[in-house]
Amino acid sequence: MPVRLDASSADFEDAFRALLSAKREDSPDVDAVVAEIIADVRARGDAALIELTARFDRLELTPETLRFSRAEIDELVAQVPDDERKALELAALRIRAYHEKQIPEDANWTEENGATLGWRWSPVSAAGLYVPGGLASYPSSVLMNALPAKVAGVERLAIVVPTPDGVANPAVLLAARIAGVDEIYRVGGAQAVAALAYGTETIDPVDKITGPGNAFVAAAKRRVFGKVGIDMIAGPSEILVIADADNDPDWIALDMLSQAEHDESAQAILITNDAGFGQAVETAIEKRLETLERRAIAGASWRDYGAVIVVPDLDVATQLTDRIAPEHLELCVADPEALAAQITHAGAMFLGAWTPEAIGDYVGGPNHVLPTARSARFSSGLNVLDFLKRTTMAKMTPEALKAIGPAAETLAISESLEAHGLSVRARLDRLNQG
Amino acid sequence: MPVRLDASSADFEDAFRALLSAKREDSPDVDAVVAEIIADVRARGDAALIELTARFDRLELTPETLRFSRAEIDELVAQVPDDERKALELAALRIRAYHEKQIPEDANWTEENGATLGWRWSPVSAAGLYVPGGLASYPSSVLMNALPAKVAGVERLAIVVPTPDGVANPAVLLAARIAGVDEIYRVGGAQAVAALAYGTETIDPVDKITGPGNAFVAAAKRRVFGKVGIDMIAGPSEILVIADADNDPDWIALDMLSQAEHDESAQAILITNDAGFGQAVETAIEKRLETLERRAIAGASWRDYGAVIVVPDLDVATQLTDRIAPEHLELCVADPEALAAQITHAGAMFLGAWTPEAIGDYVGGPNHVLPTARSARFSSGLNVLDFLKRTTMAKMTPEALKAIGPAAETLAISESLEAHGLSVRARLDRLNQG
Repeated sequence: MPVRLDASSADFEDAFRALLSAKREDSPDVDAVVAEIIADVRARGDAALIELTARFDRLELTPETLRFSRAEIDELVAQVPDDERKALELAALRIRAYHEKQIPEDANWTEENGATLGWRWSPVSAAGLYVPGGLASYPSSVLMNALPAKVAGVERLAIVVPTPDGVANPAVLLAARIAGVDEIYRVGGAQAVAALAYGTETIDPVDKITGPGNAFVAAAKRRVFGKVGIDMIAGPSEILVIADADNDPDWIALDMLSQAEHDESAQAILITNDAGFGQAVETAIEKRLETLERRAIAGASWRDYGAVIVVPDLDVATQLTDRIAPEHLELCVADPEALAAQITHAGAMFLGAWTPEAIGDYVGGPNHVLPTARSARFSSGLNVLDFLKRTTMAKMTPEALKAIGPAAETLAISESLEAHGLSVRARLDRLNQG
Repeated sequence: MPVRLDASSADFEDAFRALLSAKREDSPDVDAVVAEIIADVRARGDAALIELTARFDRLELTPETLRFSRAEIDELVAQVPDDERKALELAALRIRAYHEKQIPEDANWTEENGATLGWRWSPVSAAGLYVPGGLASYPSSVLMNALPAKVAGVERLAIVVPTPDGVANPAVLLAARIAGVDEIYRVGGAQAVAALAYGTETIDPVDKITGPGNAFVAAAKRRVFGKVGIDMIAGPSEILVIADADNDPDWIALDMLSQAEHDESAQAILITNDAGFGQAVETAIEKRLETLERRAIAGASWRDYGAVIVVPDLDVATQLTDRIAPEHLELCVADPEALAAQITHAGAMFLGAWTPEAIGDYVGGPNHVLPTARSARFSSGLNVLDFLKRTTMAKMTPEALKAIGPAAETLAISESLEAHGLSVRARLDRLNQG
């Protein structure tokens, strides 16, 4: 039974807080196990990776078969039906075009005193992309992770994807090929993250690791953070739909179910200013749940974490939305732009009833790797900047140093950092002598 | 005795690798203690914070005295000498001006099929800034952390700064005032990070935590990452100077000592194409170490982690630099721009002999919170983007959905996500009916 809230009722605030703080994911504490796995891979390299893959994925590898050969990739990608290939190509085209617009500008300017300041962006040299195996092995996610890196100019991109019992997803390999990645290893779990971070005899280390994964992968990413960069610790998916009564309840029901079907811990919330419409959406969801292939998963998500919130007017909806900070936000209202302007915290917005969230998962262009669990308060979806870093630049002239050097010297002395002050003073003295 | 390497010698590669992998920081494993502290603050709020502050900082607080009052701040900032105040004001002016140039643009464009795409940047609502107490309590760091947040438009900024035995640094409070921050709590350690992340009765939670700290603070930031955003896990400071023989050895010596004096684990490396010049810098360092106030610290750093690398020509220097990925990089050569163009990985560059690194610590404009321990390979110094996040926007038209919706449906079906496909199909069917 989804939660039903009425923003006009007296106990709303408590109920809304309970909804916000409900823990949807019961992450097991795998930190100790992960620490051991990482230490093992660091110490023994390929040998550890191969043993752990045999244990967890029931797959016997050798240093020679850790990586997919070109012939194997050729054979697998040939199995992908033509319509899927074309759809992936269209998706890649649109994702690449969107992310190309994110390439930031370098800057360089000269002040009146002659000082030149600025910055320069440059890509990380090597990035590793974790692709989950099994149920959640999505070729679209390969595109969403690999293409921003490629657009950023990352020279080397390595994919790790577990293949339990040796079963690989041909579409994942095709997506990698379309994205221009041919370095693909059939390993997963914390051991794959460790291999990417520290390297083994066969796998060169990378500088940044992105991509979703289970609790072991998340714990491993947290542990190697600092040694390499990571994107984020992703939680279960969420959608918030704000819809007025001028919508087809079935469309909204399907949009909500398209999050719910991801995972029993996923969450779909509807905010509407019409209680009757809310009821109609609930009815439509129940009807769709009768036949949906993934009805067990979607039904559990909807029953345990779904919510319908009725608000007196849409202004209240915007305030609640900022508190939820949803990963996905659909605005199915007459003037979605006006509503969007009132909302600050959301990973991705989908404006108007003709923009189902699923468009954004595949072919819209924006990234589908988005901040979950209220982290849209402080973080962004995956983007080109995740694969770039900024080097700041400064060049003083004698005149500029004369102008601002004394202040630096004063502050250095006040912080008891004598050599800092002297490094400026020695130069100022030369200028004063000259 | 600093390491002396010659890039032309046969054993150079091994020696350089040893230098790169030398562990400079022996972080104690405080993770278990930190986990307890965080759990305690989450469970008991102010009471835990007050108890832990009494234990670690020998300071008895109440919920009323956790925060500096306006009167206390007034009294403390009045103690700062006028020249320090003016120097901090100049620094703030220049840091603000530099960071204002980093404000990114929103984007919005319409495709031929009518789809509108784009993104919008928005600030985090609340940020917390950790300021170390004691020896490393630097007012300049307050400016460097607070001003980018202010420039980004962060509404609420809270500072935590431990005051062991009740002793506060007036210049830190003045820097906060100049930056426009008046919410300052006299707490520190893992307990302060926990309070910022989870909130207590007195301290509202924030969305992002930045600022340096000891091993406890670093471990706490790693643990709360995900609940809030964090900047980075900072390690000991480093400088790499590339200098030819046309430099004053004493200037270079002082630049290197201005890193070495920070911390016994700091590292200063010189790369030069002139062995005699390298020797002259070593001699100058030894001479300065005779009288430097912090000679014990700087001497230990130089002895244990210092290095002079002689290269046959400066092209070799650029390759080594990218492998070191230094936090600070000084280019004291005839054409520093040409050399800079050949280097990819560095936190901040200082071009030419008139730009001592200390300028960048205080008044240059660029941030002095920079990636350490080779993390310039994948991360940037603190900047305005650390306090902003990007919401992607997409709006389809019926025509656009007709054009790209079928590909989304195909991919949804291939990923066994039926509801995703149906959410697109239901709309396409309506269009086909119409």
